[in-house]
Amino acid sequence: MSAKILDGKKAAAKVLENVRQKAAELARRGVTPGLATVLVGDDPASAVYVRQKIKACEAHGLKSVHVPLPADVSEVALLEKIRELNRSPEVHGIIVQLPLPKHIHADRALLAVDPRKDVDGLHPVNQGQWMRLKSWKEILASGRPLPCTPAGVMELLEQNGVRVAGRRATVIGRSTLVGKPLALMLLSADATVTLCHSRTTNIAAVCREADILIAAIGSPRFVKSSMVKRGAVVVDVGSNRTEKGTTGDVDFERVRPLAKAITPVPGGVGPMTVAMLLWNTVRSAEQA
Amino acid sequence: MSAKILDGKKAAAKVLENVRQKAAELARRGVTPGLATVLVGDDPASAVYVRQKIKACEAHGLKSVHVPLPADVSEVALLEKIRELNRSPEVHGIIVQLPLPKHIHADRALLAVDPRKDVDGLHPVNQGQWMRLKSWKEILASGRPLPCTPAGVMELLEQNGVRVAGRRATVIGRSTLVGKPLALMLLSADATVTLCHSRTTNIAAVCREADILIAAIGSPRFVKSSMVKRGAVVVDVGSNRTEKGTTGDVDFERVRPLAKAITPVPGGVGPMTVAMLLWNTVRSAEQA
Repeated sequence: MSAKILDGKKAAAKVLENVRQKAAELARRGVTPGLATVLVGDDPASAVYVRQKIKACEAHGLKSVHVPLPADVSEVALLEKIRELNRSPEVHGIIVQLPLPKHIHADRALLAVDPRKDVDGLHPVNQGQWMRLKSWKEILASGRPLPCTPAGVMELLEQNGVRVAGRRATVIGRSTLVGKPLALMLLSADATVTLCHSRTTNIAAVCREADILIAAIGSPRFVKSSMVKRGAVVVDVGSNRTEKGTTGDVDFERVRPLAKAITPVPGGVGPMTVAMLLWNTVRSAEQA
Repeated sequence: MSAKILDGKKAAAKVLENVRQKAAELARRGVTPGLATVLVGDDPASAVYVRQKIKACEAHGLKSVHVPLPADVSEVALLEKIRELNRSPEVHGIIVQLPLPKHIHADRALLAVDPRKDVDGLHPVNQGQWMRLKSWKEILASGRPLPCTPAGVMELLEQNGVRVAGRRATVIGRSTLVGKPLALMLLSADATVTLCHSRTTNIAAVCREADILIAAIGSPRFVKSSMVKRGAVVVDVGSNRTEKGTTGDVDFERVRPLAKAITPVPGGVGPMTVAMLLWNTVRSAEQA
């Protein structure tokens, strides 16, 4: 038996269908949802990600406002630019592509984004608000922008009928972008949640407890078959550039025969992230 | 072998010694740290808690400003009172004692407190900020007020030399006041953290994985000996009023023989909560 593939392109297409509908409704009211992409410097990976986002906007009825800035832009100038975008009525969402050059304090840039336009869902005001809510339903209904990658994982599980309530969900990795918010989202959906990381003792045994195993560490093929319980659902958030191309955090070929369902890389969580970004942007435009 | 008692009164006394020192230093600069206690209605348990806090202030060099309001106070009037305390230069910390009467939206009251005076550490701006930090050291250094009960548990473990890094810490209960923030604090201290709750399947087996087991559910003697691994450290956050007096969430007599260390109720986490509240208040006065 080989695992079912959790197809992120297919699930993203469904989200994007909704995005298009909402964009069309907004267009009838004379509003075009606008996403500003702030890109500092010329990191090639960042440039690829931003281009993907711009292309997705254009394909689904959103307007994109691209703001490229030189690598040596001052922090003051960057913050001023963000404030200008905060004020612009044509911009409903702002993303500041990470990583930023070292001379810029990334936190200051993220905090400068108006929480209502924080379509990456990274502003502490937004994270602090939704994490207080009890159920996933309440979180969705709150209208707060949710961080795109973890929200995309939840949507992917939901669309594929993966039951979360009462099951053990284990997240490897504890980043502010993915691990911590995803753990809180899974908890709100009634999973028993374990967070493990580089300091975890006997990580293979801990991971084998999981009914749903989520890898978000940024280490190529970190999750081996010895870490996966037979019949588990495996979600790979990793996207690592290696000499052999982009690979995930999961050793896909070896884990697949054990798993009940698994996400591929690419084509799994990646497309969901972009879809949720556009979703956050149209929602922000609706609320403006 | 019987478990070591994690003595909350002793650990709290050490925190309060620091509080007194800081209050004395502030006094030399002409500042008396002030804590406002807002108590709506006449719930007897709430009245006891508030009296404890006022007494603790008086004993340790803080000024307390007690604001009793009738049970039928309007939400508008309560919010206006909170705003007045926000503006008062003599008040460095504000607590709004929970629960509030049903006609008042508790969230609105908590959000009305100036985050700089949020000595209960419950404002989403504060929770959203510290949860982004990576290490417990960074969290402590941030100067953000931390929610008193979970911070008190961390301090109690620290003072008793309980190693957290690399160990499995399991929190039963997922409240915004205790379970979720405590899980994030333990994570920042490098524990492998599991959150379980009413929807957890086979909770006894999950709890038996824990090296450090924390009960924060509000259910008298919920944690039985069958849920505890031999040699575990057991922390009881519960404080349940029953006909036989106040009891914790842990069946103390039966669990104690198994545990390596255990908190009593009363005299465990309770005194730590009050001590951390005073600590947050003097820190807020220092930063004002």
